[in-house]
Amino acid sequence: MIADAPLPLVTLDDIRSAAARISGIARRTPLVYGSTSPSATSLRLKCENMQVAGAFKIRGAANMLARFGRDELADGVITYSSGNHAQALACAARLLGVPAVVVMPTTAPVVKVNGTRAFGADVVFAGTTSAERKSEAERLQHARGLVMVPPFDHPWIIAGQGTVGLEIVEDCPDVHEVYVPVGGGGLLAGVAAAIKALRPDARVIGVEPAGAAKMSRSLAAGSPVTLESAASIADGLLPLRPGDLTFAHARALVDEVVTVDEDSLRDAVRYVAREARIVVEPSGAASVAAVLQRYGSAADVARPVVAILSGGNIALDEIAAILAD
Amino acid sequence: MIADAPLPLVTLDDIRSAAARISGIARRTPLVYGSTSPSATSLRLKCENMQVAGAFKIRGAANMLARFGRDELADGVITYSSGNHAQALACAARLLGVPAVVVMPTTAPVVKVNGTRAFGADVVFAGTTSAERKSEAERLQHARGLVMVPPFDHPWIIAGQGTVGLEIVEDCPDVHEVYVPVGGGGLLAGVAAAIKALRPDARVIGVEPAGAAKMSRSLAAGSPVTLESAASIADGLLPLRPGDLTFAHARALVDEVVTVDEDSLRDAVRYVAREARIVVEPSGAASVAAVLQRYGSAADVARPVVAILSGGNIALDEIAAILAD
Repeated sequence: MIADAPLPLVTLDDIRSAAARISGIARRTPLVYGSTSPSATSLRLKCENMQVAGAFKIRGAANMLARFGRDELADGVITYSSGNHAQALACAARLLGVPAVVVMPTTAPVVKVNGTRAFGADVVFAGTTSAERKSEAERLQHARGLVMVPPFDHPWIIAGQGTVGLEIVEDCPDVHEVYVPVGGGGLLAGVAAAIKALRPDARVIGVEPAGAAKMSRSLAAGSPVTLESAASIADGLLPLRPGDLTFAHARALVDEVVTVDEDSLRDAVRYVAREARIVVEPSGAASVAAVLQRYGSAADVARPVVAILSGGNIALDEIAAILAD
Repeated sequence: MIADAPLPLVTLDDIRSAAARISGIARRTPLVYGSTSPSATSLRLKCENMQVAGAFKIRGAANMLARFGRDELADGVITYSSGNHAQALACAARLLGVPAVVVMPTTAPVVKVNGTRAFGADVVFAGTTSAERKSEAERLQHARGLVMVPPFDHPWIIAGQGTVGLEIVEDCPDVHEVYVPVGGGGLLAGVAAAIKALRPDARVIGVEPAGAAKMSRSLAAGSPVTLESAASIADGLLPLRPGDLTFAHARALVDEVVTVDEDSLRDAVRYVAREARIVVEPSGAASVAAVLQRYGSAADVARPVVAILSGGNIALDEIAAILAD
């Protein structure tokens, strides 16, 4: 039996091209201190929760749409997503004047459904798993002649997300570790491609909920594994299976993928609000949960560490409930 | 009868010198977008809630301490404050290895008392008004040979706070309006001195709670007025009287001082959490309350407007209660 040829990984050139392509749509987000304590200066937070549409996802979506000609997009675009990619695609499509359809799970947070509709997208609900919404999206894609913009497993999406890594190195040239929340692995793949090209000695650490450890399990197995189920307060990190391409990046480039439990996700949301004065959704705080698990507090971080806050789309009553806890 | 000679105002040179003096202690805070909506790009928030010790106050305190010789500070420093200046002085003193005493009102928020003690300061409680704690602080100053670092009415304090204005102009060179929360008026005075020197056409607008309108009332009267009482959720904006020097700056340099009501302060805290993903205390959100009063939303701001988030020292249960409301 002959092994499959390895999938080609996204290059630094791909990511730099993406950065130029999306510069009119995505924002350069701030890299802020992880605490207002004068002695806590080594932990920095990359604020993708302040990105357009509230998450890093606009980077990949905008990069992919920019690769198509206007006439190719005329009938519209479609995707499947639990929320943040949905909002990002809807936002990017509206900025280009292109119709968008989004297939979301019936369990999607209301704030993410409303955010998607606010950008004018047509929201279709299908099941609760990534597989169910993907199959419905593919059916609609072919029935209506739409362009599919997948949530993570595509080189143009990964290259777009990788622009986060470029900005981290620009703002923190001596970065020692980067912690990245892992849903399908698009952000992890892109950031790892950028960081390892620019700073080979820096460590890239993926973080996923213990209840949705698809990338950890896949790396241990040596190939993508499909979980039977996934459950976590981190609703953006629940895909049952990493992508083939995101997995290939993780295996080749990522130093480590760690898991965090539900209490630590809530603690991290509170920590970020109290110490850094930032509102982050539980999925976006997974990176900080892993930092706290390893170091204890921002003041105990001795070398430059960056935690990516990947999103901030959370309803006020939900963040209030976590903060009051 | 001969009028008093006008008080000399802080100059751009004073502020630039302060910036150099405090650069090792205070942080350069980020100027972020006021919303994640792609169409809301003109409102920016100056994040002094992310400053060391959680408020702009460290700038003035550090500048003033740096003007003294080490031997002059040997017996320690003292101040009176409702909270944020207390924490800032305690923090700056600890960084210099100098003892600090802080006189706080019996009504100071626990989070600010604890923050002050965490920096090693000796907290003394005295009454509920600025006048009561000032008189107790002056008594202790003379009894113990301490150096007084007043919360706002001193040219070195004002020059330190003015460094916020320098950074705003650097990061937003075409700034059209700057909204500044007003407690005793130190931040307003310093920012106005910087902005008017660098961008004479930009408008500087002070904002205070309707329940503590000491600067508005004083400007209307033509000289500093002492309120009979003050009440607001914005606990950092409750001095009963502006300083003589801060008033002189406001009269000479500030275009307008507006008031905001209690509901609009709470609404502004929620707006900043929902739209900008930032945790701010009610005092620090007064600037945003005034922007929303004038424009309606961030998307309706057409020219570059900066709202200073002056502080973020609020307990998690208090911010949770406001967000859940």
